[in-house]
Amino acid sequence: MRTLKLTLAYDGSNYAGWQVQPDKRTVQQALEQALAQITGSEIRVVASGRTDAGVHAFAQAVSFRTDSHLAADVFMRALNAELPRDIAVLSAADVPDGFHAIRDAIRKRYRYVLHDGAVRDVFARDYCWHYSCRLDAPAMHRAAQRLKGKHDFRSFETDYPNQATSVRTIHDISVVRGTENREDFIDVEVEADGFLYNMVRAIVGTLVDVGRGAQDEEWPARVVAAQDRSQAGMTAPPQGLFLVKVDYE
Amino acid sequence: MRTLKLTLAYDGSNYAGWQVQPDKRTVQQALEQALAQITGSEIRVVASGRTDAGVHAFAQAVSFRTDSHLAADVFMRALNAELPRDIAVLSAADVPDGFHAIRDAIRKRYRYVLHDGAVRDVFARDYCWHYSCRLDAPAMHRAAQRLKGKHDFRSFETDYPNQATSVRTIHDISVVRGTENREDFIDVEVEADGFLYNMVRAIVGTLVDVGRGAQDEEWPARVVAAQDRSQAGMTAPPQGLFLVKVDYE
Repeated sequence: MRTLKLTLAYDGSNYAGWQVQPDKRTVQQALEQALAQITGSEIRVVASGRTDAGVHAFAQAVSFRTDSHLAADVFMRALNAELPRDIAVLSAADVPDGFHAIRDAIRKRYRYVLHDGAVRDVFARDYCWHYSCRLDAPAMHRAAQRLKGKHDFRSFETDYPNQATSVRTIHDISVVRGTENREDFIDVEVEADGFLYNMVRAIVGTLVDVGRGAQDEEWPARVVAAQDRSQAGMTAPPQGLFLVKVDYE
Repeated sequence: MRTLKLTLAYDGSNYAGWQVQPDKRTVQQALEQALAQITGSEIRVVASGRTDAGVHAFAQAVSFRTDSHLAADVFMRALNAELPRDIAVLSAADVPDGFHAIRDAIRKRYRYVLHDGAVRDVFARDYCWHYSCRLDAPAMHRAAQRLKGKHDFRSFETDYPNQATSVRTIHDISVVRGTENREDFIDVEVEADGFLYNMVRAIVGTLVDVGRGAQDEEWPARVVAAQDRSQAGMTAPPQGLFLVKVDYE
């Protein structure tokens, strides 16, 4: 047996999220089906984390064990031939046995795309949250800086309490309006050692309240301190969210 | 009666093209249905030109006559509320009576997007032609310059002979590889006083033969001179094509 690591891009629009669910089309199920076609055996894959229905990935990390002797790059090409068009393997590599895509992840980065143009962008309709009023991106950026560092983020966690801790460290967070043909788009990027359930989407919902002027720039810091989900903004809709990268040791 | 002009963006992926066809979902039919909802009367719209199934528009020009008294901007908002999410009205304006979106167009610009990355881009799958080998964009650009000016373009026309002339003037043509996160994308842009049926797609198919090294840079000029469709390259698939703009006097 050997262990392989894949980097996967997917458009989550037509999937009920990552994780296998009965009678639903999921990314994990599509990948495992392609692997079964190629290897002739049932393979269970592990991703760095589940993504919800409608959430996308530029580079999800996936690991699995197999006794196939196919070279990693042959695996990649064979998978890309088998997989649906909205899933693609960007890289494949042998990794030390015992590698585990969830347990060994040390850092992840997400992007959330907002669109605040007057009219919807027909091409981005499944890839952003079209917000109905103009947002103050610099104010959102300043407010976001208060979230940096190690905090108990339970105020931004759906389904708290979880079984473990809600303490996470945000290494980097930025809110930047696009330039050229992207002036109506705002990218919120968050990098952390790990994320709670819906954490990025709750942070975005909170920052949007600052961006539209309903809350001041100090408010997100007070929401963290409150340790109470009901104090934060809404959970932003899934289709604006992209898993950008996953780092390992 | 008054005449209104709309600028329309649409994602053509889920439509059988612009023109109304029995039992098919088309952009024209969707727009006329929305207009009927708003005005309560049957309205026939005219676009600057038909687009084929799968072809997109950043800014299609459409005109129609109505006896509705709704202000143009109210029309626009009402239409955007009625239209499916993959069609949007970007602007609406009253124009002099007698304005006609086809007859009065003096210039049009199209973009064709090629992708020559090793792996398909899952987010661009309906918005480009994924080409299996690396293309020499500068060579394609140089070759394309031979097509500039006034020529009989019947070598790039599907269904020649048409009822009128095949002479058109290309004012501008460029082939440019993207930068930053778009290094694997090549934009072919063509601006002309008018286009023959499938002209841009046949030009792209021809330039791709230069880009992959199968033909030399002088070849497109020889194809024009041959006045024979069978001499040109293939018709590039529809999903890479975007109507960028339509100019009027």
